[in-house]
Amino acid sequence: MDAIIISIGTELTLGQTVDTNSAWLSQRLAELGIPVQMHVTVPDELEPIRRQIDQASASADVVLITGGIGPTEDDVTRHALAAAMGVGLQLHPVCLDNIKAFFAALQRDMPEANVVQAMLPMGTLPLENTCGTAPGMQAKHKHATIFVMPGVPREMQVMYERSVLRVLAKQAGQGVILARTLYCFGAGESVIGEQIRDLMQRGRNPTVGTTAQQTIIGVRIHSRAATPAQALSQLEETALEVRKRLGELIFGEEGETLAHAVARLLTQQKITISVAESCTGGLLAKMLTDVPGSSTYFKAGLVTYANEAKINLLGVPKELIENYGAVSPQVAESMVTQCRDRNNTDLSISITGIAGPDGGSAQKPVGLIYLGIADRNGCEVIERRMGEYLTRDEIRDRACKFALNQLRLKVSA
Amino acid sequence: MDAIIISIGTELTLGQTVDTNSAWLSQRLAELGIPVQMHVTVPDELEPIRRQIDQASASADVVLITGGIGPTEDDVTRHALAAAMGVGLQLHPVCLDNIKAFFAALQRDMPEANVVQAMLPMGTLPLENTCGTAPGMQAKHKHATIFVMPGVPREMQVMYERSVLRVLAKQAGQGVILARTLYCFGAGESVIGEQIRDLMQRGRNPTVGTTAQQTIIGVRIHSRAATPAQALSQLEETALEVRKRLGELIFGEEGETLAHAVARLLTQQKITISVAESCTGGLLAKMLTDVPGSSTYFKAGLVTYANEAKINLLGVPKELIENYGAVSPQVAESMVTQCRDRNNTDLSISITGIAGPDGGSAQKPVGLIYLGIADRNGCEVIERRMGEYLTRDEIRDRACKFALNQLRLKVSA
Repeated sequence: MDAIIISIGTELTLGQTVDTNSAWLSQRLAELGIPVQMHVTVPDELEPIRRQIDQASASADVVLITGGIGPTEDDVTRHALAAAMGVGLQLHPVCLDNIKAFFAALQRDMPEANVVQAMLPMGTLPLENTCGTAPGMQAKHKHATIFVMPGVPREMQVMYERSVLRVLAKQAGQGVILARTLYCFGAGESVIGEQIRDLMQRGRNPTVGTTAQQTIIGVRIHSRAATPAQALSQLEETALEVRKRLGELIFGEEGETLAHAVARLLTQQKITISVAESCTGGLLAKMLTDVPGSSTYFKAGLVTYANEAKINLLGVPKELIENYGAVSPQVAESMVTQCRDRNNTDLSISITGIAGPDGGSAQKPVGLIYLGIADRNGCEVIERRMGEYLTRDEIRDRACKFALNQLRLKVSA
Repeated sequence: MDAIIISIGTELTLGQTVDTNSAWLSQRLAELGIPVQMHVTVPDELEPIRRQIDQASASADVVLITGGIGPTEDDVTRHALAAAMGVGLQLHPVCLDNIKAFFAALQRDMPEANVVQAMLPMGTLPLENTCGTAPGMQAKHKHATIFVMPGVPREMQVMYERSVLRVLAKQAGQGVILARTLYCFGAGESVIGEQIRDLMQRGRNPTVGTTAQQTIIGVRIHSRAATPAQALSQLEETALEVRKRLGELIFGEEGETLAHAVARLLTQQKITISVAESCTGGLLAKMLTDVPGSSTYFKAGLVTYANEAKINLLGVPKELIENYGAVSPQVAESMVTQCRDRNNTDLSISITGIAGPDGGSAQKPVGLIYLGIADRNGCEVIERRMGEYLTRDEIRDRACKFALNQLRLKVSA
């Protein structure tokens, strides 16, 4: 049993929107042990959609389709499905009532355009949409079961969990694939790859592979077996070996971010923290508060972007900025100790640097940052130079990840 | 002339990584007037990659491939390309020297695993990689020109700009497609669709379509013509009509975010701003400082996450928090006026609310926020209830976008 995922939308093939639905659905299918043959993305055009539905239905057992079922003229997925199946469209009165009820709950009249969303190819089953207007569809074509879902990620996800999952879970069932990803920070993909090279040999079970995404290296492990217990025991064994080889480069598993790893350590050890940011402009505070329950450890952040803010809000001495510049180890140190003292937290972090694209010089190039870390006993400042070829977003992101990782190493020591 | 984009990686078909390369490349191709037939994503497996390369080369003029050329065992794109072309692999000494030089510049030895990256299918041209180790490849198969690039987005993008773009620009050249997207905030996709329904009729040129992404509705316009001047004049005409219909719902064009729109207005009018955030934890400050040059308007942010921080850093009266709660219009008002006064800025914004998933009650559910906006003359507080079905990330994101939009409307008035 395997699957093909088709994403529909001219905004996708034009590159105006990044398709996140295929990745999300692939994760869900992996959890059910259903391998994904491929993802296909086609524009909102009847014939290409029809052809892909037809081809996919001949080659896979499950075809998951997202997008193109909105109320506007450019949405033609329902027509393409009907054409592939060789049937016409039919109004479903129950669907129409649901759409009207959706608008009524918002105290608005249903726009006329939404009527088309109650039209389904004959022989298809509607799937309820609890957070939008477009009902989904379940159909049978060739030997495949087809599911059509909205393109809006949240609507699609809820529909999948409520209506699609149980049908697929029933159809799957032979063999199990368990997956786990261990996340690393602090070394490149090839350095990590060398340390686990033998585990990455093709044909091995569990399989081991690496991925790099914005300086986070993921080591993913896939274990196939007849039973969940067997798959799990194989998975655990390989994960243990990977952990042994990579040591403290590994900060977490699965969906865990560096912020999650830090949050776990701070919460366990009842450590409180505050931050003072300049060039990262609130991003470090944002990352630290991404985690639910962050109020147990995160107390306050000061985004002292302007020099006056460093002086007035944090009490950085004016002379320090005049003598050494706002991007200097001296200012990073003053920021972090003042931040700790004003907020009375166990730890504090400061970042000052040059995020670019302008403002760099030969001595202080774009990508230079000073990171201050203070605890109740003292503080240290680390200088870090990131490549000047990085974008502003990348520099800010990496500076914050570097800070989170230093924090993680400090509190796990 | 048209193109197919193939993304390679088991991490993609497993859903562990979202493919952003296809969208980025599609944008570049649209700029050249090269329509994209489809995106295809396949796992790191020789036969599926070979088959897709073969099929795509028969159906499109240009095949852009990303991923699977790393140094590790799981990367087989070079082998699959060789198999599709029916040739063997060959060591390119120049490529090997470049890879060694890349490591030398980092003062490190080249890991043995990287040698394979200098092996290319016979008859292919290497493309220099200036920010990574893997050289790209240019090949001819069937009637298509094939380009293979790294999967790491930044490496791929630089290689495209340096080596691929000029080859494609030469090959393209007949006919022009110009694209523009107008971005809206403050109404749903179907409401917006109704107002421009006639412009969205199929077959019209320019075509008009809508997309929804995280509460931002994009209205995209595509104009085809024989000459750039003609395409541009058609585009301008339709854009003007869309702007007339949608009025102040439109905040910007192209890659512009709400923060960009706000930045432009604040910079033009020389208005300074500071923010005080609770539940959004620094995200609003982060968005306002995403824009290069933001130091001209953004002075400071206070992330007063804990109640003590609201009292000590901002001077919110303790009794106000005790009597009304931290999530209340009274506290939002005190936060915003104190923030403005302490930072001496023209404007100030405060956000306090319940981002969830916990901490909600019947009176103050998850998704409730109070937004304070102050200028030198006074302040107002707006209550906003977002759906409880939203995630923490969505609530924080929408609260900040709502704040930016209110700011935009205030300063554009």
